[in-house]
Amino acid sequence: MAEHTPIVLVHGGAGTLPRNQLTEDAVQRMRAGLARALRAGQAVLLQNGSAVDAAAAAVVALEDEPKFNAGRGAVLTAAETVEMDASIMCGNTRAAGAVACVRKIQNPVLAAKALLLAGGHVLLCADAADAFAEQEGLPLQPQSYFITPERVEALRKAVGVVLDHDSQFAEAGQTVGAVALDRHGNLAAATSTGGMTNKAPGRVGDTPLLGAGTWAENSVCAVSTTGIGERIMRACLAHSIAARIRYSGMSLADACQEALNEYPLGEGAGGCIAITASGDVALPFTTTGMARGCVRGSDTPLVALFGDEELSPAE
Amino acid sequence: MAEHTPIVLVHGGAGTLPRNQLTEDAVQRMRAGLARALRAGQAVLLQNGSAVDAAAAAVVALEDEPKFNAGRGAVLTAAETVEMDASIMCGNTRAAGAVACVRKIQNPVLAAKALLLAGGHVLLCADAADAFAEQEGLPLQPQSYFITPERVEALRKAVGVVLDHDSQFAEAGQTVGAVALDRHGNLAAATSTGGMTNKAPGRVGDTPLLGAGTWAENSVCAVSTTGIGERIMRACLAHSIAARIRYSGMSLADACQEALNEYPLGEGAGGCIAITASGDVALPFTTTGMARGCVRGSDTPLVALFGDEELSPAE
Repeated sequence: MAEHTPIVLVHGGAGTLPRNQLTEDAVQRMRAGLARALRAGQAVLLQNGSAVDAAAAAVVALEDEPKFNAGRGAVLTAAETVEMDASIMCGNTRAAGAVACVRKIQNPVLAAKALLLAGGHVLLCADAADAFAEQEGLPLQPQSYFITPERVEALRKAVGVVLDHDSQFAEAGQTVGAVALDRHGNLAAATSTGGMTNKAPGRVGDTPLLGAGTWAENSVCAVSTTGIGERIMRACLAHSIAARIRYSGMSLADACQEALNEYPLGEGAGGCIAITASGDVALPFTTTGMARGCVRGSDTPLVALFGDEELSPAE
Repeated sequence: MAEHTPIVLVHGGAGTLPRNQLTEDAVQRMRAGLARALRAGQAVLLQNGSAVDAAAAAVVALEDEPKFNAGRGAVLTAAETVEMDASIMCGNTRAAGAVACVRKIQNPVLAAKALLLAGGHVLLCADAADAFAEQEGLPLQPQSYFITPERVEALRKAVGVVLDHDSQFAEAGQTVGAVALDRHGNLAAATSTGGMTNKAPGRVGDTPLLGAGTWAENSVCAVSTTGIGERIMRACLAHSIAARIRYSGMSLADACQEALNEYPLGEGAGGCIAITASGDVALPFTTTGMARGCVRGSDTPLVALFGDEELSPAE
């Protein structure tokens, strides 16, 4: 079998990304965070690692960067707590793991990967998911580890505002994800988030749900989505992209674009990263920006944030 | 616009349903329970009610019947507790609501419907979902209300057995669901379950997940699925049926059959009920049996349990 050129795509969330409200430092930290994630995934693949391990490694790097809304720096619930969701799926076997509303796991995507590897239950929520991670020996952290001053300030602004999934989306963006193609031609997708600022405790969004936030199927594509979670769930966005390719014979790019443009999504609602086993990639969004990046083989990682910007080397 | 003949389909779960192990009384109670659910949905539709209200009413009747694995009579977790999942989706707007791992809500599908009507978060889990139901004024119950001697006995048999999603499926069946077509041509789907016997606390199955356990889209179909939850999630079963119809132009029956037969599902893994706005219906399964029923207009409800059995009047 021909060896495939390894590829990693990452996103740090679709959102309004108001260029004039972002400091140069914030822009540089986001670009550097994307590049770090791409290099983490790339390193796994260049050592003949699996797409699952590469996607997880990339997402861990994004969870660890407080600028993104996942792991450290996740947004706050209405109860001023951090509750995180994550999922990962293997395109070869469609094995998968996911956690929802976890409050202690330093890297939620690693708990999702542990569930994938265990091969039993796919999705665990709340305290039980935190307890599972502890049993697996994964690092736990107190809430203070996750909470940053920026997210406290964002919650302060949001409190008192009537719950509106659209207007809060600007604050809620920055969900992270990765898709990968390994040398063996296997695909994987992983997604991780803190959800939306001021969400109700116990709210589960699209991120941990197979078919909504994450999908991977070697013969079709791997997808990680970002945007207004409730609409993505009602669109079954990730699977609807795969279905367009499989059943309509659409190109990856057309499938993503049509799915993002269609009710209950549409202008401003989200974006995704997607890849096929033949190496086609797409990083579309209908928001004004989406933190995103791509690396092929041993090339330099390429990243971009804004809608009017091409991918370029991070440094 | 032409008035549509109202239709309700229900299921009480796909499973092995061993004919020789079921008492005549058990068979009669299941048949009567299905008929009661069909009549509850039918009554809503004949009074010009919505498909959402009809699907919810039918599922409430099934949740209230201890023979089925949802609401009262739900199966037990490894911690000897009841944790229930439910979802509901409107085919007209694709509005949806769902709850996961709830322990107190007498009728979980009504909490899902309250979330659908509220129009904010789609999915709430664990304590937060129970608290939401209480705020909505929905009846709560102690765990003792839900737990029946039959389910305690089933857990006793399962404990010590290595977690095996296939062999436990016989005990785990009896998830319930309903799909409905109302006079206005709107579709809805609803699904409710206690999950699988001896599941880990905090485990979320396919039932509360849009695209896996439940899907409704007026222009395509409404589906409620039942079977091995983890495989249904990895197949994105309900949405994959809709996708085959929408993008391949397959018939409803062919779409269901192909989806049920395909990896990671296949022989013995599950079943579904499905309906289109033009009134096509399908009630297929790859297990040896599936409690199921159908009612059209003001006709007598028809029900069946076993694989070698046609639908027939319940009494």
